[in-house]
Formats: sequence, structure tokens, C-alpha cells
Amino acid sequence: MNAEHGTPASAEPGTLRPGGRTARVRAAVLDAAGDALAEQGFAHLDLADVARRAEVGRTTVYRRWGTVTGLVADLLTDMAESSLPRSETGSLLGDLTANARLVQRTLADPRQGALFRAVIAAATCEPRTAEALHRFYDVRVREWAPCVRQAVDRGEAPAGTDAHEVIRAVSAPLYYRLLTTAEPLDPAAADRAAAATAAATRAGAYVRPSPAP
Amino acid sequence: MNAEHGTPASAEPGTLRPGGRTARVRAAVLDAAGDALAEQGFAHLDLADVARRAEVGRTTVYRRWGTVTGLVADLLTDMAESSLPRSETGSLLGDLTANARLVQRTLADPRQGALFRAVIAAATCEPRTAEALHRFYDVRVREWAPCVRQAVDRGEAPAGTDAHEVIRAVSAPLYYRLLTTAEPLDPAAADRAAAATAAATRAGAYVRPSPAP
Repeated sequence: MNAEHGTPASAEPGTLRPGGRTARVRAAVLDAAGDALAEQGFAHLDLADVARRAEVGRTTVYRRWGTVTGLVADLLTDMAESSLPRSETGSLLGDLTANARLVQRTLADPRQGALFRAVIAAATCEPRTAEALHRFYDVRVREWAPCVRQAVDRGEAPAGTDAHEVIRAVSAPLYYRLLTTAEPLDPAAADRAAAATAAATRAGAYVRPSPAP
Repeated sequence: MNAEHGTPASAEPGTLRPGGRTARVRAAVLDAAGDALAEQGFAHLDLADVARRAEVGRTTVYRRWGTVTGLVADLLTDMAESSLPRSETGSLLGDLTANARLVQRTLADPRQGALFRAVIAAATCEPRTAEALHRFYDVRVREWAPCVRQAVDRGEAPAGTDAHEVIRAVSAPLYYRLLTTAEPLDPAAADRAAAATAAATRAGAYVRPSPAP
């Protein structure tokens, strides 16, 4: 997905930490799987082709990942682990805008956008991919949720605001635009998603309903 | 999709209007295509199987629709044409809630939800399906946009509000929930989407930026 996935340029034989080769094989295979998904979609994903692209033995790939759904699940785990940490700008609108811009840049990137489209498509018919995708978004939502709780502490949002729903609300219009329109995913769309979510949050639209007495 | 697609029970031979048979064949084939998509997804859609399900000659289906992407494009055209008209409740929140509940009921319905997931997945890799899907949402957005313009006229929303963006904002969290989480698409999710969008609209989050001087 990013620079973390390459073999470090300075790596010398003998200086790698234990497990280094395993980690490098995984990085190469997941990078190759991401490339193949972005180029051809899930339907054409093939373990032998991924092994070829990664310059890794086919047996290694079959033994370690077993199936294409297993490989995609591991790719999503890695994407969640290597995603960027949240920003802290000191205001709810600033934090939500930073989040929206990050999502927008990811989805507007040709490779990453195609990769997300492919994985979302696969999740509609592959339960194991759907579970892995849900976990990915869960990790991302948990990463950003504290910015909403901080906004509550600062008095910018009402007590009882559902932080997870707020973070999902920022992403939703960007994914909806990606999947249902031909319109570009531009920074203006990100800023509007953040501004709308911040306004709705301040107005109490994401306050959890209190349990019935 | 709904009762409009069946052959009228009262239809007697000789009483059908001109074009009746053609319309009935189309209805049967599109219903069968919808069933097949909902059950098996786009990757397994097959014209011969659709003809069998519809009890229509295979040649008719090949001659009229040609390819599975052609068939799905026609299904989306029909879905747009036969979708329900918008509600008019007299308030922005009431209208957006009616819209959100309609989308939520559609996506929560097992057959319709599976059908939309299948078509969205197909659109990620089939440009012709993507175009047909974009047209479908465009028709639905245009159907509901007047409720936002009425809200502006009533003083419930600021002048310059982008009606299409408001309508898309109501649907976005429901589709996002469908595609990226395991959480149920319940009426509470619809009501929250409507309330959040109404609050953001009132706060001016969907006012089009004025052009640079």
C-alpha cells in the first residue's frame, strides 16, 4: 500500500531481524495482490499470478494463504495495520476535515481507489471478505473516534454523541460518490462531508437515544 | 421489482393492448434477471438461465438484450421508471425521513438488498453497468430534489442549497452501512440519516460555493 511494504533499501544480508524474510515475503505478496486486484478485480485474482508478480514461490503462497479470499483478508488486515494515525487539529471541524481529506485522497488515488472498489465488490458475495472489510473499517473508525470524544470534552458536541457514527458519516458521502456517481472525488467533496457532519454533530443528530425508562 | 412487473391477472386473450406481449416478455425477463442477480450475483448471471427462469425463448433474450451487461442496464432503467414517487409531508425533515425510510426498506429487503449489492459490485468493473447505475441514481435524485427546493422556499434551508447533494447525503450513510458494516439497516439508521442531513442543510453545509469574482 505504501512505502512500509517495500524491502528497506539499507537492508544488508545478516542485519535483518528474525522473521525478516517472512515479513518481506508477506509484504511482496500483499503488494502484488493489491496490484492485481486494482488492475483486474477480485474475479480474476489468482494465487499463481500473485506469486509470479511477487517473485515468490507458488507453493509458499498456496501454503501460507491457501485461497484468494484468505489472501484478501490478510491484505485488509495489513491495510488496517499500516494506515495512517489520526490527526489532532484542536477542533472538531479540523479533525473531521483531516479525516475526510485522507479518505478522499485514498479513494481518488487510481490504484487505491480501484483496490477499494474491488474489495467492496468482493465483499458483496464473499462472506469472509465481508468480515475482513468490516474489521478494516472498524479499526479505522476506532482510530478516529477519539476526536469526537475530545470535541465532547471541549463542549463542541453534545454529551452522548455516538463517536463511531460521526466518523462513519464523514466517509459515507465519499464512498457513495465513488460507487454511485460519475462525479470526481475532489477535496471540495471531502470538505463538504466534514462540514455537514460537524454541523449535524453540533445539532445533536448523532446523540444516542437514551434507553427507555 | 414489484407488482407492476407481473402479467395482469385479468388479462384475457385479445384484450391486451398492442405491444402487450413485448411488455410482458420484458417484465418476465427483468424479474428473472433480478432474481438471478439477487441469488447468485453478477458473475454468475447467464442469459440462457434467465430465459429459462422467465419461460421465454433463449433466442428472444439473446436478440433483445444481447449481453448480460445489456440486460442489467435495461433492468436498471426499468427500476428507475417503476420506482415510487416522492412523498410531500410539508417539512424538510419529514420529506427527508420519508426518503430515508424508502431507501432503508429497499436495502433491508432480502431480494432488493442483494440485487443492489450485486449491481453495485458489477458497476465497479463493468463501465456500461456503472453508467446505467449512475443514471438510476440520477433519476432518483431528480425525483426527490424538489423537496429541498420547497424547503428553501419555505425558509427552512438557505438559498443556494444544492438539492442533489442533500438527497445524496440522505442515502449515503445507508449504503455505507450496507457495504462496509455488519450492522442492521434499521429504521433508526434511516431516521438518523434524515435528521443529520436536515440539520446540516439548515446550517448551510450544502450551499453551493459562490463562483470566484
